Amino acid sequence: VLTNADVDAIAGLLHLREGTPFALYAHRAVLGILDRNPLFEVLDRRIVPRRELEPDGWQMLRLVDGSESGLEIRAFPVPGKVPLYEEQGSMEVIPGAAGLTTGLEIRSGGARLAYVANCAEVTDDVRRRLAGMPLVFFDGTLFHDDEMIRQEVGTKTGRRMGHVSIAGPAGSLAALDGLGIGRRVFLHINNTNPILVAGSAERKTVEAAGFEVGFDGMDIAL
Amino acid sequence: VLTNADVDAIAGLLHLREGTPFALYAHRAVLGILDRNPLFEVLDRRIVPRRELEPDGWQMLRLVDGSESGLEIRAFPVPGKVPLYEEQGSMEVIPGAAGLTTGLEIRSGGARLAYVANCAEVTDDVRRRLAGMPLVFFDGTLFHDDEMIRQEVGTKTGRRMGHVSIAGPAGSLAALDGLGIGRRVFLHINNTNPILVAGSAERKTVEAAGFEVGFDGMDIAL
Repeated sequence: VLTNADVDAIAGLLHLREGTPFALYAHRAVLGILDRNPLFEVLDRRIVPRRELEPDGWQMLRLVDGSESGLEIRAFPVPGKVPLYEEQGSMEVIPGAAGLTTGLEIRSGGARLAYVANCAEVTDDVRRRLAGMPLVFFDGTLFHDDEMIRQEVGTKTGRRMGHVSIAGPAGSLAALDGLGIGRRVFLHINNTNPILVAGSAERKTVEAAGFEVGFDGMDIAL
Repeated sequence: VLTNADVDAIAGLLHLREGTPFALYAHRAVLGILDRNPLFEVLDRRIVPRRELEPDGWQMLRLVDGSESGLEIRAFPVPGKVPLYEEQGSMEVIPGAAGLTTGLEIRSGGARLAYVANCAEVTDDVRRRLAGMPLVFFDGTLFHDDEMIRQEVGTKTGRRMGHVSIAGPAGSLAALDGLGIGRRVFLHINNTNPILVAGSAERKTVEAAGFEVGFDGMDIAL
């Protein structure tokens, strides 16, 4: 399931090319970007069907042969921006309805979680979707909005890239507080984000607020 | 220097996106494919200039700021095919002049080598280019033309993919024999190729013929 069309979301498809059957789900807007780009034809459509996410309501994820995977998802729009390579000048953070940035509710039997890898702003709608979830994965790109500039590795703010930061009054730490969420795990963490450093002040801050820092190979049982 | 436009040659550019200055060299045909694909706009053209390979003759590779790298290259066409994602039905192995598959002679001071990562056929012209070289890196995709089919991991022959195989009367082992080349090293080796297995009969065959099997981190002083 592709939740947006940025390079970090879609370039992995090129590594899955040729010979490996799997079903690809995405919003129509994301599928449109893939369809218009000949490079993704390396994914043979006969064994990698492209399927549209239903705009609202639960749908069963199905394997290539049409059988049920046992996982159901419900997609919802979150604030985001157009992919970098589709920008036409201005900042272009869009309200979310255009389908280029998608959050997911996922359920299987009684287990349930939400996945929001990209989010430009924690709106009331996003909060409503996440309230009471046993588990939420959330966009942890930057700790401070200007950390890439301060570390002199880039010229962009998190806001400019379509990512709400962790710190600050409108940050995810404050905005996801008090929603009765079971576990809150940051993912999609940029290499400038000091929460990646064990023992850092920022790591302690997020842990004290009840958040976890995701890592490769993390295994969670629901 | 991109020597063709297949996904395995160009997808790595997406990992180099944003912030890292480097100069990109390729044949006009390859640059055209990149230029037509919006995805590669993640490489900021202000810090990643795209430069055309001179069709014939030596040229100095230059850094982003225009200064000399100390490496000179001379590109030459080799038989190849259009990239998979640009195929329009038929096999489309092309004679080479279209610029979609390029070999390189590289020199610096008195040192000299040739690099041919993709080659559909070892023609007399290719042989002439490689004769007498102190070092040649050469396309080692498959050992047997039909090994992917025999191993049941694919339906394509090497020939269909635009790669001459190592074995057989027209294979690279025979075709690169007797040319007075110093060291001959296979690279671009597919994971079905048994020369990757130390001690295999095929590895012994290529080593007995005076070829080496390239590996990650290989270090050669000329």
